Amino acid sequence: MSRYWSRIVHELTPYTPGEQPRVADLVKLNTNENPYGPSPKALAAIAEATSDQLRLYPEPTGQALRAAIAVSHGLSESEVFVGNGSDEVLAHTFQALLKQEGPLLFPDISYSFYPTYCALFGITARAVPLADDFTIDPADYDRPCGAIILPNPNAPTGIALPLSAIEALVARHADVPVVIDEAYVDFGAESASSLIARHPNLLVIQTFSKSRALAGLRVGFAMGQRPLIEALERVKDSFNSYPLDRLALAGATASWLDRDWFEEKRALIIAGRDCLSAELAELGFTVLPSAANFIFARHPDHSGAVLAAALRERRVLVRHFKKDRIQDFLRITIGTEAECDRLVAALTEILAEQG
Amino acid sequence: MSRYWSRIVHELTPYTPGEQPRVADLVKLNTNENPYGPSPKALAAIAEATSDQLRLYPEPTGQALRAAIAVSHGLSESEVFVGNGSDEVLAHTFQALLKQEGPLLFPDISYSFYPTYCALFGITARAVPLADDFTIDPADYDRPCGAIILPNPNAPTGIALPLSAIEALVARHADVPVVIDEAYVDFGAESASSLIARHPNLLVIQTFSKSRALAGLRVGFAMGQRPLIEALERVKDSFNSYPLDRLALAGATASWLDRDWFEEKRALIIAGRDCLSAELAELGFTVLPSAANFIFARHPDHSGAVLAAALRERRVLVRHFKKDRIQDFLRITIGTEAECDRLVAALTEILAEQG
Repeated sequence: MSRYWSRIVHELTPYTPGEQPRVADLVKLNTNENPYGPSPKALAAIAEATSDQLRLYPEPTGQALRAAIAVSHGLSESEVFVGNGSDEVLAHTFQALLKQEGPLLFPDISYSFYPTYCALFGITARAVPLADDFTIDPADYDRPCGAIILPNPNAPTGIALPLSAIEALVARHADVPVVIDEAYVDFGAESASSLIARHPNLLVIQTFSKSRALAGLRVGFAMGQRPLIEALERVKDSFNSYPLDRLALAGATASWLDRDWFEEKRALIIAGRDCLSAELAELGFTVLPSAANFIFARHPDHSGAVLAAALRERRVLVRHFKKDRIQDFLRITIGTEAECDRLVAALTEILAEQG
Repeated sequence: MSRYWSRIVHELTPYTPGEQPRVADLVKLNTNENPYGPSPKALAAIAEATSDQLRLYPEPTGQALRAAIAVSHGLSESEVFVGNGSDEVLAHTFQALLKQEGPLLFPDISYSFYPTYCALFGITARAVPLADDFTIDPADYDRPCGAIILPNPNAPTGIALPLSAIEALVARHADVPVVIDEAYVDFGAESASSLIARHPNLLVIQTFSKSRALAGLRVGFAMGQRPLIEALERVKDSFNSYPLDRLALAGATASWLDRDWFEEKRALIIAGRDCLSAELAELGFTVLPSAANFIFARHPDHSGAVLAAALRERRVLVRHFKKDRIQDFLRITIGTEAECDRLVAALTEILAEQG
């Protein structure tokens, strides 16, 4: 607290990201990073951009990157907006589109950054409870509102809605912006980008952090019709002219174009998820059906907090949320086969010890 | 305009950065970039960080970079905040500290992003005219206000205030935040960081884009007592957990530690500035006394717009502002000796032609 603070600063409850420990030999399954690393072509493009040219400002709109993304999604490059991680893209979206007279609706169990953005930008939030089976029921969103944001698949549950349900929701709320946050879409859900041509109120947000294995490079993007993208551009150009540095632009563009690497690694992650889900079920866990690169699971006889702490003692890190309804769950990132094996071995040991 | 926009979007007049043309053989003296390129040690550190580790999120607070900066300025690392270019640091500063009940004061001729931030965050701005000789007179700031921001040296004039004048201003306004924006300080002014221990209302902002030749990497930072830094951290952690990617953190830290490269290149730029100022004076220009890596000059007999256009035809880019009081000036970045020679040759030709 300080007399020099703007009023808003007093009211903030900042988001707490997953731990980034600097401990060796840790099995790190807590922040949904990709175990396989980025495309070698992305690393080569970064190496090429690492030159005296770093003295010059980057191209301010990320034109080459936007063009690459647009082609794959059947959009024009002016329908794509890029930012410094999907967190920055989300932040601009909250300020540019989701601050409306009516309240913003999102699931009660969802990305926990959403309420933080609402506090930062003075947006009235209304949390809509998930159904008892932790799915999103679009009918629950049939209420007066100013805007809607949903992750698909949802996090931390990992459960996806089919594209038909997303389109019905977007059409039913044609008078307000509807944002679909697709951070995990590449692991088993269908992107709503195919709906953009028909729905002027739809914005779709994706990231390079998960399926492209570039969490350390900070690149995310949004897709939508021109008026929505223009709103993001106006806010961005009032905030930071050059949010993406030269290396991020070069690496992300090359990563996007290496479709083979992307397909191969995401197939490995999906196979690993199916395998790990089966193994945890055998240990007695209830595993929610995941379309993401993580699973959300609980054991009927063991507290989530206790399990997470016991795993940590064995140098296995998973994410646990101290939050109503989900406090007995663990959110476990899909690692390599060896990492998943170490997790299962540790859990087997822990369950045996605790009886 | 769109019915889906938040109200604020309608009211924005985004900032226009200097042009980043992709034309070969251009003498680019329009965006105050450093002609000498970054430290080779920065490039080596980036190369080392270009690895599979990019799959992992960066360290969210930039701890190593903050520690390096803190040591040089006699501060603790908790008194340093880092961000995605000083534009992002400024944006957070406007939201966290400069939005107050009273108006924000800054010079009428100054960094043209300031009014844009005010529009974005709903801050009442009051422009304080520069004196007739384009200097800042601290006495003009003796009026009721909520906060003050000043560049030192000022841009685009290049004129610096002495440290004693800065301290007097900060002390006289002890009840409000005073921000000194030192983007160009390394080329001839004294940093106010030495005043931080005595003044809890002082925040000092610097960048790696100019004297460290890393405009393409996007790194800036702020220094101040803990409560001011905590305000920035709270806003940042409500906006984007990881504003600096792994490569930017690695490159900026190595750049900061290479003091020799920094000293050698800034000495070259200062020498180039003195030389160019003398040559332009010989051509009849009035050159404001610059403490920056650019000069601000006008010719009594020639319009600034005409000169800028004529230079452009000769593939020399300088910055011209269509703004009252300064429309006859050119802002010219100090390039290499060869670039300055090409500028002088082009101007000589143009003045001869126009008679």
